[in-house]
Amino acid sequence: MNDQVLPYSQLWNFANEIFVKMGCPTEQAKQATDVLLSADLRGIDSHGLARLSGYIRLWEAKRINAKPNIRIIHESPSTAVVDGDQGLGLVIAPRAMEIAIEKAKTCGTGWVAVKNSNHFGIAGYHAMKALQHDMIGLAMTNASPLVAPTFSIERLLGTNPICVAIPAGDQPPFVADFATTTAANGKLEILQRKNQEAPEGWIQTKTGASSTNPNELKHGGALLPLGSDREHGSHKGFCLGAWVDIFSAVLSGANYGPWVPPFVSFLSPPADPVGDGIGHFFGAMRVDAFRPADEFKRHMDTWISRFREAKTIEGQDHLIIPGDPERESEKQRKQEGIPLNSKVVEDLKELGVKLNVRL
Amino acid sequence: MNDQVLPYSQLWNFANEIFVKMGCPTEQAKQATDVLLSADLRGIDSHGLARLSGYIRLWEAKRINAKPNIRIIHESPSTAVVDGDQGLGLVIAPRAMEIAIEKAKTCGTGWVAVKNSNHFGIAGYHAMKALQHDMIGLAMTNASPLVAPTFSIERLLGTNPICVAIPAGDQPPFVADFATTTAANGKLEILQRKNQEAPEGWIQTKTGASSTNPNELKHGGALLPLGSDREHGSHKGFCLGAWVDIFSAVLSGANYGPWVPPFVSFLSPPADPVGDGIGHFFGAMRVDAFRPADEFKRHMDTWISRFREAKTIEGQDHLIIPGDPERESEKQRKQEGIPLNSKVVEDLKELGVKLNVRL
Repeated sequence: MNDQVLPYSQLWNFANEIFVKMGCPTEQAKQATDVLLSADLRGIDSHGLARLSGYIRLWEAKRINAKPNIRIIHESPSTAVVDGDQGLGLVIAPRAMEIAIEKAKTCGTGWVAVKNSNHFGIAGYHAMKALQHDMIGLAMTNASPLVAPTFSIERLLGTNPICVAIPAGDQPPFVADFATTTAANGKLEILQRKNQEAPEGWIQTKTGASSTNPNELKHGGALLPLGSDREHGSHKGFCLGAWVDIFSAVLSGANYGPWVPPFVSFLSPPADPVGDGIGHFFGAMRVDAFRPADEFKRHMDTWISRFREAKTIEGQDHLIIPGDPERESEKQRKQEGIPLNSKVVEDLKELGVKLNVRL
Repeated sequence: MNDQVLPYSQLWNFANEIFVKMGCPTEQAKQATDVLLSADLRGIDSHGLARLSGYIRLWEAKRINAKPNIRIIHESPSTAVVDGDQGLGLVIAPRAMEIAIEKAKTCGTGWVAVKNSNHFGIAGYHAMKALQHDMIGLAMTNASPLVAPTFSIERLLGTNPICVAIPAGDQPPFVADFATTTAANGKLEILQRKNQEAPEGWIQTKTGASSTNPNELKHGGALLPLGSDREHGSHKGFCLGAWVDIFSAVLSGANYGPWVPPFVSFLSPPADPVGDGIGHFFGAMRVDAFRPADEFKRHMDTWISRFREAKTIEGQDHLIIPGDPERESEKQRKQEGIPLNSKVVEDLKELGVKLNVRL
């Protein structure tokens, strides 16, 4: 169960070769690899290499198209809808974000809804693409239903993450990247591996009772929206998850709610789809469409510094500014390598043997 | 302490006359009255008539300008920044939302950041203005600092609400309107009046300890971000509140974080402002900038019906779709009158005597 630390470049080359073997065009394989590995670098281990064999299984099941014709099917000056042609979300999402950025250049802002896609890696990768253009970036996606809205015993929503990335000046950017549930599914996976209980308020049983069993989802249970229960605002977490679902899928023509197809290949997609694949939503806002970029960034520096220096509860040195932990992880892991769970390493090795790629 | 029920029209006429006495131009007085009373109609009692005398006190303190020159100071095809000239937020916000809607007509979407404003009533009123144009509406605002981010013992953010309003077809629209804290301040006020304790997870003391005292804020305590504590995702609630603060104020040039001026006239604004007044942010997105409006609305109907009919935990008939409770309240109160707390009635009567307006 010990983690094995492997260099970033070695893992990058491995994943890239896997995507090439899958039939991805060279540039798309590189893009997919960059997105996938950014999760491992940023410490969101559940969304990186741990998922690589899952993508391959979906491709083998003909549920991922390695050579998609990604195209705009509807647009206005500041908006577009992209059909991902069942390609890798890891490739479709960066293209959609590029379109949002291009629209923002001429229009001030750009907004792109995507259908016919699948898992796009971490939202942060895509939203952060806006930063180099002095733009604010937004990214959200729906996902397989694991979450029961307030009062529901059915799983109707995914963990539906949102990322908002905002440029600063001397300070690093503000990057808030979070699932709209109390706890992300990846946190349950960690507890499962360690055989530990979950805190109250993360999960419910199939009848809606409180549970601390991290394996509850296998028995019909559900994750809970941010807020945990009605008294603590779970209806607000439900609002957030619903917002992401509607922007990602009802605007684009993808599947929404309980119709979102599962990421795992051993579960079939619903027989009565209401749209195509899963959906994403991206935004790019030129800062200078509101005020001069330098002025904005100076004030962001003031904002961040003031919050960073706030008085804290005993035992805590400082506030955590959104984006700080991931950036520190990225810096460290680029230098020192990426720690991988031994099960993930085994899984990657098997995949390598199957596709004749050496890890 | 018993509630007194008064007809909507009587209360509307009263508030309208008060705004006229304050010096508001006729149309602006009507607009302010509509916005203010929509809170009472929709059951968000803390944001309606209960605040009327507060607006007047700010006007008396020369912190509200009854005849503002509301103007665009920066724009791009899809964006604008509005300077509210220290007018009533109740008047500035509808104007800003109109500009967002106009931009969306030509550009697909419109986004307006506002500075130099003050309390704008309920976010829902403004976001819902988009619905009649087959547009999605967004509204958010920052507010006086009452909330301590995760690990902070300082109050650095307001309850910073967000509203997303999405049109449907046969179903009523989806309207999610929520503070980004575990509990809105209005809920504490209700507990204070009833002399009841608050649930754990709503409030902390001045040293960051858990508290159930609804008067804790008077002793240096703070409201908690949605999620309550780190284990239950309060860092995500902090992300949401921060997002609202930055979009509303750093984009527009208003005050942000701990610099946001207080709504109450007996507290002075910070001596070292970083901007002008408080800030808002509005968005309007034409549905048919993404897909034909009829198609979108048909799918929204499917979305809403599916969630409405979900299997529920024992003791609950059905899921609550965002917007349902407020719409039901509005229907009932328009017909049967608005119940007002006796303290609020007293306050309004005093105000009436002072300004020579009969309730």
